[in-house]
Amino acid sequence: MKILSNLKKISIYGMGLMGTSLAYSIKNHPDFNGKVFGIVKSTKSKEWIEQQAFIDKVILSEENPKEMIIDSDLIVIGLPVLNTIEFLKEIAHWDFKGIITDMSSTRYLIESTVRELEKHNSLKFIGSHPICGSELAGPQGYVKDLYLNKLCIIINRLQEKQSIDREEFPLEFVRTFWQELGMYTLEIDAESHDYLLSYLSHSPHILSSILTRTIGKDDYIIKKNKSSPIPIYGGGLRDMIRIAGSNPKMWYDIICTNKQNILKSLKEFQEELNEFINILEHTSNSFEDIWFRWQNQAKEYRDQIYGI
Amino acid sequence: MKILSNLKKISIYGMGLMGTSLAYSIKNHPDFNGKVFGIVKSTKSKEWIEQQAFIDKVILSEENPKEMIIDSDLIVIGLPVLNTIEFLKEIAHWDFKGIITDMSSTRYLIESTVRELEKHNSLKFIGSHPICGSELAGPQGYVKDLYLNKLCIIINRLQEKQSIDREEFPLEFVRTFWQELGMYTLEIDAESHDYLLSYLSHSPHILSSILTRTIGKDDYIIKKNKSSPIPIYGGGLRDMIRIAGSNPKMWYDIICTNKQNILKSLKEFQEELNEFINILEHTSNSFEDIWFRWQNQAKEYRDQIYGI
Repeated sequence: MKILSNLKKISIYGMGLMGTSLAYSIKNHPDFNGKVFGIVKSTKSKEWIEQQAFIDKVILSEENPKEMIIDSDLIVIGLPVLNTIEFLKEIAHWDFKGIITDMSSTRYLIESTVRELEKHNSLKFIGSHPICGSELAGPQGYVKDLYLNKLCIIINRLQEKQSIDREEFPLEFVRTFWQELGMYTLEIDAESHDYLLSYLSHSPHILSSILTRTIGKDDYIIKKNKSSPIPIYGGGLRDMIRIAGSNPKMWYDIICTNKQNILKSLKEFQEELNEFINILEHTSNSFEDIWFRWQNQAKEYRDQIYGI
Repeated sequence: MKILSNLKKISIYGMGLMGTSLAYSIKNHPDFNGKVFGIVKSTKSKEWIEQQAFIDKVILSEENPKEMIIDSDLIVIGLPVLNTIEFLKEIAHWDFKGIITDMSSTRYLIESTVRELEKHNSLKFIGSHPICGSELAGPQGYVKDLYLNKLCIIINRLQEKQSIDREEFPLEFVRTFWQELGMYTLEIDAESHDYLLSYLSHSPHILSSILTRTIGKDDYIIKKNKSSPIPIYGGGLRDMIRIAGSNPKMWYDIICTNKQNILKSLKEFQEELNEFINILEHTSNSFEDIWFRWQNQAKEYRDQIYGI
């Protein structure tokens, strides 16, 4: 199955950093000869993207873009989770014949919404979560090779308990689309996705913000930092706080739609922290032995997560 | 004052990542025409550094290097904190005429040890903490431009309560040495240094290890991660856990010599975490407002720490 070479029109609904980077990758793919339309919210973004001139048409979402994109072969939604759900509810009434996918960071609420919609509407939707992006937001932060060699998780409903006939769903289409853009793909169910990502992405983002808040609340540190010829930090802190304060709206949606998993993973982190503080404060003689085991174990876990 | 062009011999006691990178930078500095001697602990490191052939002599620490380095103009100690203190106690009896500095990550215990030693010995010591380094260890991890454009904190005893006549101490020598290597310098007292760095480096390193432990303990996550074509993480997690499990001996010394500050900063992080978990779990109606303020504040703090 070849996808990109056969598509005449792809519309990207939401041209933030992810959507704009995707538009760039598609338009610059050697196999793609079709058109890319982008739908944006603000006039400012519209003008900026038009100036870059790498997609065929930019439409404001308030201009009711249905007529201009209903003939797309593929619509990729590049919105925050709750807006993705709103748009899916809308498009369910369009009688849209093409394939729909998205790029949201939580999956369960989206998948269950789609199941509800499917009771009364035909919707060829396969959920995707390309794991890339950055702490930046907006089309100006777009990255040319953002998707290349990254992982895209695809929600495979065949892995759900109530299995659905594969033929109904354009799973292969969406998988091949991402692979042709240079991505690796992994297929799992929505619940597993949300559990895994709470540990591997969502809580780490929150912890980065908590760390900056802990430091930033101390006026003395901020004052000393300002008085230094360059800020007082090494690569360690720089990397730990890079993702602090990421796009509040996007993360609001993520937290609201994966609250229980995030609470669970944060509480396990909290337990691990409490235990360390307790050891540091109260074990003096045996601290050396405990520390070496503790820190070497952390290194082993890190290498396992990195896949080294 | 010109330093590097006037030095005939610099010895670096401890050739890990920091020491080896420093040796490289000095030998390749256009103004330096002298010799660099390195003192290492293991035969393996000795052989490796000799093969690189960028310094003049490598000596094993067990070979009693005193005779070979006592005529140095400058000795830079590149050892973990507790070993630095041991070496300072030894060199105090050498009747060494040159300048001594070091590269340790905690300062208070070193400075107070030096004060004690000075009661009976002459010791031209100025403490330095170049803020660079990485999660790697050993000479093989050396980086050619490790020191360039980074910050070096220099312990200025003039800022202590019991001020000491500046003429006694080769402060200007050490400041100029680091500046000629391309570093920015900041002069503060030892207690301020240890307080600031507990927040800006030490606790963040521990938190990175705590995060990997929280994730790594979950067999399900590790199993799923292994089954993926590439590991399931984005740039956020990658950066958050990069420094997890850093050199356990080096960090043992840091934690032991800055325990109270590290406990204080970890407990403030703990409070901030507990508060967030509590908000997430128990405020439903007002969560949106709280979240946007909370996350925007984190972004502001991050920018302040980055000096943006």
